[in-house]
Amino acid sequence: MKIHNFGAGPCILPQEVFKQAADGVLDLNGIGMSILEISHRSQDFDIIIKRAQSLVKELLGVPEGYSVLFLQGGASLQFSMIPMNFLPENGKAAYLDTGVWSYKAMKEAKLFGNPFAVASSKDKNYNYIPQNFEVPEDVAYFHITTNNTIYGTEIFEDYDVNVPLIADMSSDIFSRKIDVSKYDLIFAGAQKNMGPAGATLVIIKDEFLEKRARVIPTMLDYKTHVDKDSLFNTPPVFSIYVSMLNLEWLKAQGGVEAIEKKNIEKANLLYKTIEEHPLFTPNVAEDSHSRMNVTFTAINEDVEQRFLKACQENGIVAIKGHRDAGGFRASLYNALPLSSVKVLVEVMKGIQ
Amino acid sequence: MKIHNFGAGPCILPQEVFKQAADGVLDLNGIGMSILEISHRSQDFDIIIKRAQSLVKELLGVPEGYSVLFLQGGASLQFSMIPMNFLPENGKAAYLDTGVWSYKAMKEAKLFGNPFAVASSKDKNYNYIPQNFEVPEDVAYFHITTNNTIYGTEIFEDYDVNVPLIADMSSDIFSRKIDVSKYDLIFAGAQKNMGPAGATLVIIKDEFLEKRARVIPTMLDYKTHVDKDSLFNTPPVFSIYVSMLNLEWLKAQGGVEAIEKKNIEKANLLYKTIEEHPLFTPNVAEDSHSRMNVTFTAINEDVEQRFLKACQENGIVAIKGHRDAGGFRASLYNALPLSSVKVLVEVMKGIQ
Repeated sequence: MKIHNFGAGPCILPQEVFKQAADGVLDLNGIGMSILEISHRSQDFDIIIKRAQSLVKELLGVPEGYSVLFLQGGASLQFSMIPMNFLPENGKAAYLDTGVWSYKAMKEAKLFGNPFAVASSKDKNYNYIPQNFEVPEDVAYFHITTNNTIYGTEIFEDYDVNVPLIADMSSDIFSRKIDVSKYDLIFAGAQKNMGPAGATLVIIKDEFLEKRARVIPTMLDYKTHVDKDSLFNTPPVFSIYVSMLNLEWLKAQGGVEAIEKKNIEKANLLYKTIEEHPLFTPNVAEDSHSRMNVTFTAINEDVEQRFLKACQENGIVAIKGHRDAGGFRASLYNALPLSSVKVLVEVMKGIQ
Repeated sequence: MKIHNFGAGPCILPQEVFKQAADGVLDLNGIGMSILEISHRSQDFDIIIKRAQSLVKELLGVPEGYSVLFLQGGASLQFSMIPMNFLPENGKAAYLDTGVWSYKAMKEAKLFGNPFAVASSKDKNYNYIPQNFEVPEDVAYFHITTNNTIYGTEIFEDYDVNVPLIADMSSDIFSRKIDVSKYDLIFAGAQKNMGPAGATLVIIKDEFLEKRARVIPTMLDYKTHVDKDSLFNTPPVFSIYVSMLNLEWLKAQGGVEAIEKKNIEKANLLYKTIEEHPLFTPNVAEDSHSRMNVTFTAINEDVEQRFLKACQENGIVAIKGHRDAGGFRASLYNALPLSSVKVLVEVMKGIQ
């Protein structure tokens, strides 16, 4: 049975990428060695990491004056590295509280200075993106989480603020056009639209580096990794390799603009089905709908059970909602084909 | 042409493991999904990480009261995490200075307290392991690097000291029997004898955790990862999967004791060849010989060039020494077969 993987992450990647990755594990480009056994200082890997960097720059339109890094530790380590690097003792940092991930990021900043929320949607279990907030000009930075996987909300605006803007784009990077020039630092765990778990993408404005606020352990200092071009120590070789393959796939699809159109089509189809269905309701207000994670609820336990059973029978996996939100969550990342969404929609329509 | 990979790391792993890893990238155990697209919270991955932990415990004879963790960031991040967790401000920490890696570890500790070297082999470019040093009893811990890849030295003794013993075993873990009970913390980048780059093994005594010396960012606090069993955030799924496959392979070989015998045989053959050869000299005194990295030098430039050419013609790769040591380095990790060492020995004998 064909599997339709609606998982929230690590998540589906293109089948072609799995095929190429498996080939590289057996024999990388015919060199007689596996991608898993080559040195990170070898020419073979140098080509891979440079190509991955260059694809990130090309696909996102990264302007001059930014560095592209592949680190480890996930977004969770970035939550600490950001204030460690950029929040001076007694300094202030603004956060937009749109859920667990921004809350966790703010919590780490408390060890280094004074973070605070400019706005929060906690009052409605984070089911909307706050509007009409103000970011004071005396903060070290303003931190946002552009897509909130658990609740299914997304920020599509590149905010105009007069302070350094930092964005956790773990779950929507490469899914839509962004204006990188508005940001001083963008970070993302690889394991949604970039590649497999184990690598963390950081795009940092070189000027911003000058604002480092204290003496920092070597591995946690962004400057270490900028100076050594992500090769200060052994990087996550395989995750970077598969990220490169996946970004090549994205480029071949027509890049971010083309995939954004497909992502809009997939999300619209599913949201429309939920809206029109008498037995399901969307969790999130329309103006905050995430295209990556569509969250919805069945009107009662009986519908829930019948729907889950039908999903199982049709190869639909990882559709249950996060424990903090309940209900269902269909993640529609770049690699999920429209045909999988159509299968889901038909299954939903069959529940009456 | 068959390749003989003598690289220092990331390095050779068994061919069977490459085959199994490639299969898992295409379809993990017939579930219809790739290892690269399953959730780290799925039952499929739960089985993998628990099996990897249990193999580490079994193969190394880890006693009760220790936790086995799979982290990210490599040994280099451990250099900072260790003093951040265990060296109080104004506290002292003892280091055995056996090369660049122990020196780098000591450097990071300076940000948190007062590290010092109990002994150093820097006077002879680290080509021996210091003997007859004393470790004062008022230090927070004593830190050693058991195998020094760059120079080719190795510590085979599990030191008896009256302070917590911490060991960086990145390049010799799983290559020989050790007495884990002598250590409070053992750490190792995966990319030699455990698996591919991207995972870091930590074996930590639970009692030692109580000695944490300050408030620590969540991701850098060992207790976070012990409490969440390495699943606080998304772990490096694929690196852990391949580590599990590789440790299964090691178990099937007869475990650490059996591989140690093979490693001794490989190292002895190569050291003997170097000793007896009129045109090559070993870099390291016999009592400090590493079994993992055999370093040697040609007596002149002409011999060096002829040897390199012969290596190339025979599929021998990654044999050049590290830039800090010069000459040659043959790394003989677990997965390197005796037959590859025999090819190297024959090539050396052919240089006259």
